[in-house]
Amino acid sequence: MNELKQLIFVGLGLNDEKGISLRGLEETQNADMAFMELYTNLLPDFSLHHFEGLAGKKIDVLSRSNLEEENGKTILNAAEKGNVVLLVPGDPFVATTHVALRIEAEKRGIKTRIVHGASAISAVIGVVGLHNYKFGKTVTVPFSENSSETPYNVIAQNRTLGLHTLCLLDLKADEDRFLSVNEGIEQLLRMEEKKRKGIFNPETLVVGVARVGSVNPTVKADYAEKLRGYDFGGPPQSLIVPGELHFMEVEALIRFAGAPEKLRGVSR
Amino acid sequence: MNELKQLIFVGLGLNDEKGISLRGLEETQNADMAFMELYTNLLPDFSLHHFEGLAGKKIDVLSRSNLEEENGKTILNAAEKGNVVLLVPGDPFVATTHVALRIEAEKRGIKTRIVHGASAISAVIGVVGLHNYKFGKTVTVPFSENSSETPYNVIAQNRTLGLHTLCLLDLKADEDRFLSVNEGIEQLLRMEEKKRKGIFNPETLVVGVARVGSVNPTVKADYAEKLRGYDFGGPPQSLIVPGELHFMEVEALIRFAGAPEKLRGVSR
Repeated sequence: MNELKQLIFVGLGLNDEKGISLRGLEETQNADMAFMELYTNLLPDFSLHHFEGLAGKKIDVLSRSNLEEENGKTILNAAEKGNVVLLVPGDPFVATTHVALRIEAEKRGIKTRIVHGASAISAVIGVVGLHNYKFGKTVTVPFSENSSETPYNVIAQNRTLGLHTLCLLDLKADEDRFLSVNEGIEQLLRMEEKKRKGIFNPETLVVGVARVGSVNPTVKADYAEKLRGYDFGGPPQSLIVPGELHFMEVEALIRFAGAPEKLRGVSR
Repeated sequence: MNELKQLIFVGLGLNDEKGISLRGLEETQNADMAFMELYTNLLPDFSLHHFEGLAGKKIDVLSRSNLEEENGKTILNAAEKGNVVLLVPGDPFVATTHVALRIEAEKRGIKTRIVHGASAISAVIGVVGLHNYKFGKTVTVPFSENSSETPYNVIAQNRTLGLHTLCLLDLKADEDRFLSVNEGIEQLLRMEEKKRKGIFNPETLVVGVARVGSVNPTVKADYAEKLRGYDFGGPPQSLIVPGELHFMEVEALIRFAGAPEKLRGVSR
């Protein structure tokens, strides 16, 4: 056992076992024990077998109930005895899921550190070529059984300010359920029919992104009525509802996302 | 020469040569030519010599004028002949600097791809334990010779909506100049004296972060009057001005950023 007693949260980055940073892999190789959760986000091409080969050790994959219902006791008990890593998809604290675990560790006197990874939050915005500082609040579109007015209201608020909205689409990776761009658009169109504020119509420009960080992401910009039936392929998927567009953003959407050429002329 | 003609933008992630993903290093190893820029962001512990050892090849480090004034011709000409990578600090398209280069490549029929990296945008928010979806628009605080009302106005707008503001602090890595948390706070206090909207006072809670992604980041939350003189150490640095705080966010700020205990009781 290493004499260090600590819990290191390591980001797995995007898509597959090669999304992790060199530092993250090194910390995993050096750890006394390595845990992983694969339910807060989906890494579609991830191979546990291959990753264990790279890490040179067995990885203990924890379920949602291991981590949440037991307050992460398994991990905390291990971290009180040695050097432990918890591997998390993306950048470890973009989802708020593990903040409680980190607080509990610090309360117990366990040192915590973070090795960051690439996150869909910055990747989705980057791959479509929109400007990061022109985004307002981010929102998650829930599954339709939990349908809520929040996404519509956040888009409305951001548009009033001329800002873009990044809409994450809900997923339960452990149940193999994910919301598609198509379903996200349908939900927003239904909300428009109910609220009638003119925020999200069939003529609204939207951008859909699937499998960001893979070698074949699908990136497509078009009007909602076109994209509601567009085939984005497998998960994970995200949706962007643009606000006011700078002319460079219009060029980017046309070049990188196949947006309609007639968008030229609506930019500022 | 590889028969592929493409330009791959590869994120270097944070802090040092081990911030890159395994995929990013692999693409660099396989490239016919590898370029790098280190001026859009600062990787304080980056060793080019060590990175070239990992990549197994010489890396051509380009200056701002190579890339911007010549419209990236060096890179585009290389990518018309083979498989080229451009290594960029962080996640390659969080800064908008290289969007024009990617558009130009696509215009010339050069295929482009992105290998994402960890970005300060998600890392700074994660390391302090605040909730990503409670942030409004991000803003950059410029050097004082370019002082502008924009940061103050963005913070005001976000606070009206109860939202946190991530303030990036300007830097010119190629001139070894960077704005500190201390200077950012001073600028905002001066703007308050001018505008008097009660947005940013000596009693305003702020969070400063330095060297995110390193093994010894400085993370400190306190009132502006306290942090204006706090020693954050070396760059890069960022500033967060919180809006309304959830009680879990308060706990996180106390545990991870040494915020005053009396914050308990102001959360929602």
